[in-house]
Amino acid sequence: MISHNAKITILGMGLLGGSYAKGFFQNNYRLTGIDIDPSAIEFAEKMHWIQEGGEDPSLVSGSDIVISCLYPDVFVQWIKDHQQFLKPGSILTDVTGIKREVMSQIQGILRKDVEFIACHPMAGREYKGIQYADASLFQNANFLIVPYENSSENAMQTARDIAGILRFRNISVLSPEEHDRMIGFLSQLTHVIAISLMNVSDNTHLAEYTGDSFRDLTRIAKINESLWPELFILNKDNLVREIDEFTAEMKHFRDLIQNEDTESMQKLMIQSTDRRSCFDVRK
Amino acid sequence: MISHNAKITILGMGLLGGSYAKGFFQNNYRLTGIDIDPSAIEFAEKMHWIQEGGEDPSLVSGSDIVISCLYPDVFVQWIKDHQQFLKPGSILTDVTGIKREVMSQIQGILRKDVEFIACHPMAGREYKGIQYADASLFQNANFLIVPYENSSENAMQTARDIAGILRFRNISVLSPEEHDRMIGFLSQLTHVIAISLMNVSDNTHLAEYTGDSFRDLTRIAKINESLWPELFILNKDNLVREIDEFTAEMKHFRDLIQNEDTESMQKLMIQSTDRRSCFDVRK
Repeated sequence: MISHNAKITILGMGLLGGSYAKGFFQNNYRLTGIDIDPSAIEFAEKMHWIQEGGEDPSLVSGSDIVISCLYPDVFVQWIKDHQQFLKPGSILTDVTGIKREVMSQIQGILRKDVEFIACHPMAGREYKGIQYADASLFQNANFLIVPYENSSENAMQTARDIAGILRFRNISVLSPEEHDRMIGFLSQLTHVIAISLMNVSDNTHLAEYTGDSFRDLTRIAKINESLWPELFILNKDNLVREIDEFTAEMKHFRDLIQNEDTESMQKLMIQSTDRRSCFDVRK
Repeated sequence: MISHNAKITILGMGLLGGSYAKGFFQNNYRLTGIDIDPSAIEFAEKMHWIQEGGEDPSLVSGSDIVISCLYPDVFVQWIKDHQQFLKPGSILTDVTGIKREVMSQIQGILRKDVEFIACHPMAGREYKGIQYADASLFQNANFLIVPYENSSENAMQTARDIAGILRFRNISVLSPEEHDRMIGFLSQLTHVIAISLMNVSDNTHLAEYTGDSFRDLTRIAKINESLWPELFILNKDNLVREIDEFTAEMKHFRDLIQNEDTESMQKLMIQSTDRRSCFDVRK
């Protein structure tokens, strides 16, 4: 378990950074926070989630564990600009939603006496900013660890400890390729569907008739436009393929309706019902 | 308000018929139930939701109000075969999810001394059968009344009374054309999306990684395959158009990802976020 004497620093005090800080604070860890926005640091200090903070990158000095909650491109740039402040032998980790490209870039630039272990907490909100931070986000969520082939047991254990402290429900270990393929389908494709369903026409006048089905399908159409285009582009091979396969499936079903092919529709409905049962949450 | 001395008969004691019967029973109405499945009648009698029941269509004789909870084609056939048992001056209503075709067919065949008023309770479940009946289905749901141009105030009031007894949250009145267009988008398109998302590939091995987003988008992929193909076919002009427009919107977004057009993606995300806010449930 991570020592309560360890210096832990969070880079980027937004929704996720703030939620991490709160979760660590509730478990009696002392944190340092770094953010270019003074009001985010002020908020975290007022809540006592961090002991010290500011925008100065040298605040990271002496940290045993550094957790980046920055957007992917900002994170890579931060390493290039400020890695001289990282402590030899320290562990660097992240929360980035896409892995292959980011892991490859970091492998190319990071000092050899610092180890990076990629993590992806599968949790979020439709809002951005530390004021929406909420450590309970993680309690029913999956924590994904995405090691390099040569990641150390020490780095893996640090990642598992972080998930444990924040009370994630499951911890899974995947390769970067498995991770990005899975996220392309389960998360990114679903967001593109929700966005497209809201944008296909202005149907806001239908709100009074709307039941749970439409609300459930479009909840994630509220999306952080500063972050997601980059995540989509970083995974575009997988995501474009998933969109193409999904729209082909829609087109196939459309033709069954057009041809009034009840029997084929029934087969697909029986299959979708069966498969969906596998995704029921076990209580 | 509907008199407690009225004879009210429900045709078809499935999920919806059973839920109606339970709701009326809880408000001290006495009901007759008709179903070709003796076990459904037995269940309803055991629960005291109906006072009498069976498969004999003549049980409907003397009813002041008849509520069909049959599938659309079965309902139309029932009128053709058994309308001689309907009481002169009585009101006939339904729960059918699609209106233009069904209303037009009924207008062509129904006796002129019986009035049909089309209703659509926008509530359901992913299961079928009276054992899943639940009158609380209706408490947050919309009740749609879809009159003919010459529907009587008496028929309209009966429809409103049914919605009131069953405690629907909202009552709306729409034309058949408005109804079917709205349902094509809000309900049918969303079901086709959910079905297609489950069927595009066998991703059941991803269940352990699945968060709320994917579960929300696919909840309605559990679907009654005996009912829905008919509903889709009865509205195929609207539904095929909605599918075409939606897949074109998906294709557009796909091209933005392919071209790494961050700015255009951001605009669409801001628009989807704004529009979705109009669908937030007011607490």
